[in-house]
Amino acid sequence: MFAIKNTFAIVLAVLLPAVASAQSNPASQAARKWRQAHERAIVDEFVGLLSIPNVSRDRENIQRNADAIVRLLEKRGIPARLVGIPGSNPVVLGEIRTSGATRTIVFYAHYDGQPLDPKEWTDPPFQPVLRDGPVESGGKPLALPPEGRLFNPEWRLYARSAADDKAPIIAMLTAVDAIRAAGLSMKANIKFAFEGEEEAGSANLERILAANKEAFSGDLWLVCDGPIHQTRRQSVIFGARSSVTLNITTFGARVELHSGHYGNWAPNPAMTLARLLASMKDDNGKVLVDHFYDDVEPLSELERKAIAEAPPIDRQLMDDLWLGGVDGGPRTLTELITMPSLNIRGMASSRVGDQASNVIPATATASIDIRMVKGMEPRKTADRVLDHIRRQGFFVTDGEPTAQIRRDHPRVARVVVSGATSHAIRTPMDLPIAQEVIRTVESARGDVVKLPMMGGGLPLEEIERPLGTRTIVIPMGNHDNNQHSFNENLRIQNLWDGIELMAALLTM
Amino acid sequence: MFAIKNTFAIVLAVLLPAVASAQSNPASQAARKWRQAHERAIVDEFVGLLSIPNVSRDRENIQRNADAIVRLLEKRGIPARLVGIPGSNPVVLGEIRTSGATRTIVFYAHYDGQPLDPKEWTDPPFQPVLRDGPVESGGKPLALPPEGRLFNPEWRLYARSAADDKAPIIAMLTAVDAIRAAGLSMKANIKFAFEGEEEAGSANLERILAANKEAFSGDLWLVCDGPIHQTRRQSVIFGARSSVTLNITTFGARVELHSGHYGNWAPNPAMTLARLLASMKDDNGKVLVDHFYDDVEPLSELERKAIAEAPPIDRQLMDDLWLGGVDGGPRTLTELITMPSLNIRGMASSRVGDQASNVIPATATASIDIRMVKGMEPRKTADRVLDHIRRQGFFVTDGEPTAQIRRDHPRVARVVVSGATSHAIRTPMDLPIAQEVIRTVESARGDVVKLPMMGGGLPLEEIERPLGTRTIVIPMGNHDNNQHSFNENLRIQNLWDGIELMAALLTM
Repeated sequence: MFAIKNTFAIVLAVLLPAVASAQSNPASQAARKWRQAHERAIVDEFVGLLSIPNVSRDRENIQRNADAIVRLLEKRGIPARLVGIPGSNPVVLGEIRTSGATRTIVFYAHYDGQPLDPKEWTDPPFQPVLRDGPVESGGKPLALPPEGRLFNPEWRLYARSAADDKAPIIAMLTAVDAIRAAGLSMKANIKFAFEGEEEAGSANLERILAANKEAFSGDLWLVCDGPIHQTRRQSVIFGARSSVTLNITTFGARVELHSGHYGNWAPNPAMTLARLLASMKDDNGKVLVDHFYDDVEPLSELERKAIAEAPPIDRQLMDDLWLGGVDGGPRTLTELITMPSLNIRGMASSRVGDQASNVIPATATASIDIRMVKGMEPRKTADRVLDHIRRQGFFVTDGEPTAQIRRDHPRVARVVVSGATSHAIRTPMDLPIAQEVIRTVESARGDVVKLPMMGGGLPLEEIERPLGTRTIVIPMGNHDNNQHSFNENLRIQNLWDGIELMAALLTM
Repeated sequence: MFAIKNTFAIVLAVLLPAVASAQSNPASQAARKWRQAHERAIVDEFVGLLSIPNVSRDRENIQRNADAIVRLLEKRGIPARLVGIPGSNPVVLGEIRTSGATRTIVFYAHYDGQPLDPKEWTDPPFQPVLRDGPVESGGKPLALPPEGRLFNPEWRLYARSAADDKAPIIAMLTAVDAIRAAGLSMKANIKFAFEGEEEAGSANLERILAANKEAFSGDLWLVCDGPIHQTRRQSVIFGARSSVTLNITTFGARVELHSGHYGNWAPNPAMTLARLLASMKDDNGKVLVDHFYDDVEPLSELERKAIAEAPPIDRQLMDDLWLGGVDGGPRTLTELITMPSLNIRGMASSRVGDQASNVIPATATASIDIRMVKGMEPRKTADRVLDHIRRQGFFVTDGEPTAQIRRDHPRVARVVVSGATSHAIRTPMDLPIAQEVIRTVESARGDVVKLPMMGGGLPLEEIERPLGTRTIVIPMGNHDNNQHSFNENLRIQNLWDGIELMAALLTM
């Protein structure tokens, strides 16, 4: 799941009881049996893959990862190759042709991981360590149990990409083993597409797919990424918000001024910025930019029903996050992430705390991101924010304003818009294929939390636009996996559950 | 003049023509003659003093400075000694007793300088270099001219404290030489009090004076510090604002959150802070904190007249500072600094620019300073701001709020108040002694810009409170001296003018 590091996963202090799995899917049952007999071998294969460093820009190791995954596929007799364009990391493409199949399902995961600072990690990030619980709760390192001894499902494997996003790769391939061992067969053609630069923003994915349409074509892409619901219930997610970023700088005098000698007279760009930002949202978090919500495509009845049925988590999350109030009330988090948002990512002007000095700052900067939902045009959305800034009396420029521009206008804002390219995706939940996926996941994992969309981003449009296909997001990691942060980990039970989940989806 | 570094002096691009000096003061005339015959020796003495590093916390060199100044006094037969309290840097005290004197005038300056980073300086800060103009305009280094050759008055001497604040020390002592050489005599008892930790906030000054009341007593303290008017006209300043600082931190979730997954729901502390700050001032810079202006002591008619007569500088300053508008209109800068101000010194929340990431920040912090004028109580003023914050719905604490506090209150602000100890000083301009100082300065330097107060701070209350005396500020540095920043310098003409100015004041 693409995002930036320094975001911490949320650990719910008290978990709702997991709903007992009413597992009726024969492939999932076969996967469980296979797994119980091969736990150590499965984890060994996982550890092997996790041991290869996988930061996107580390080209040499990225290639080693891609080659290793090709070998994992070929070991299973699945023809595999690397597909890329000049300058890209390769997508690993594997294919299982099924005689008589009338459709093709593509299983997507990514093998690259978030950049990291090893100093922050308890264990070296590319030397996987098994622990008997979360390291934050004092989980101790363990030797891997010998073949034949079961793993405790609450143990966790620590390594970069243990959850995000190598676990699905291992789950899929293990599921293939289990399906075959049980003599079950697939109904659809299956493709595996493992991306190598999702954490770098999937900058090349769309072009790779567009240049290889036939190879990557499918009736449905299952995007296997992200954590399951905070209640530990399996989730299926039908879309994602897209985002656009604006960096806004306001200006005071050309240099910092002494706040005694010029305070009351020289405009303070930090105050100017504060006033501008404050003008953008009301007290309850509603965005006050004109026409901001105009193009939002309303949720369908089925989507509203899914939100209403999602387990309540707000109260618990607030407690865990030390929050005495939230924005957007009385709507819940699950509903609010189906709406567009405007968020200050960071703010800076001169210095604070011990570093502060008696100055009127020369500039102030805020970075904001806007999360868009289905119906919203990225460039149009950004332009509406620019219009809002102008209506607050600012001369807006995207370059460094000259001395003359600054002399000519009482308020000047430099606004740099970036990433205004992707639209949000919301796959209709009432599509027959969507309903079939829900039923299949339920047959493997019991009650499912169905979410019209996730709040964060995924390269869904980058897949749908070139291929004209549909996407559905199938997560399997634990919600408290520390993805994008240090001490990323996968709870062993989530790996076991993921294998059973993939077995069901591979045979649908 | 106490403030913090990173404040740049303002260089007016076009100077108003200096008013021709109608110099009628005999001591000033004697000082000019003496100076013209001894330029090299005067500068040599100055260079010697500037060569001793003088950052307040550098105790060893501070002692060397104090000892050197004692020698400069004793060389002139002026009894001198060091006065301090445990832990303080010494104040150098010298005294000239005048037989038949009916009053005592104390000449204050400080010999410590602002902390610095030598890497920022063009020349080493404690190896004074003469240049043929401002270094910013390409001024080239020069050898000191031999005795007998005149200095070009537009040359500048570069060194830490060349302006702030060793120049007045040299000017005073040279003036003593000139007065004596001309056979003129003083009328008052004269004391010299040279502080050694003004740039560190004069933390010990009041206690030193209180413990040595008799030694430091005087009818008037002339606080010789700071730059003259931006028009290059001599100024006399009758007070200074005092300040109090508030560090305000607002809180979101206990960790940074992913702005996709939680944006619209988790409160954003940067937005909370922006809204709070925006509530504090209106569009024209007026402070909206209730009762903020209640206790401001109105300006007297004489003070209002002085402001009206001060040369206009706003338009020129705006142009030079690249400002398209200013706060507080239609009042001028000169008037506005006689009013209290509220200023954001700095602001920080997560990261901006290339460092920004897709997060909802966990905290946001602003440092604000409030400049107070006569009549305002520091603690009461700070409390009014705290009340304002509470009225915006915040639970206010001065410590790190616990998880429970944060869970119990939708909005929590940590506010740390510091420096709420000093009151602003405004010496009435209609006091006979004030009028006498103005006349004396005019007799030396022609037309004088009379300012009821300066915007920045000076330890005036720290002098007045223990001694029950009056203070008047007599600056002599060029306004573009880069004080508190790198490349501090004194324009040679300002040294010459300062000697004539001190000669007049020493004989009043």
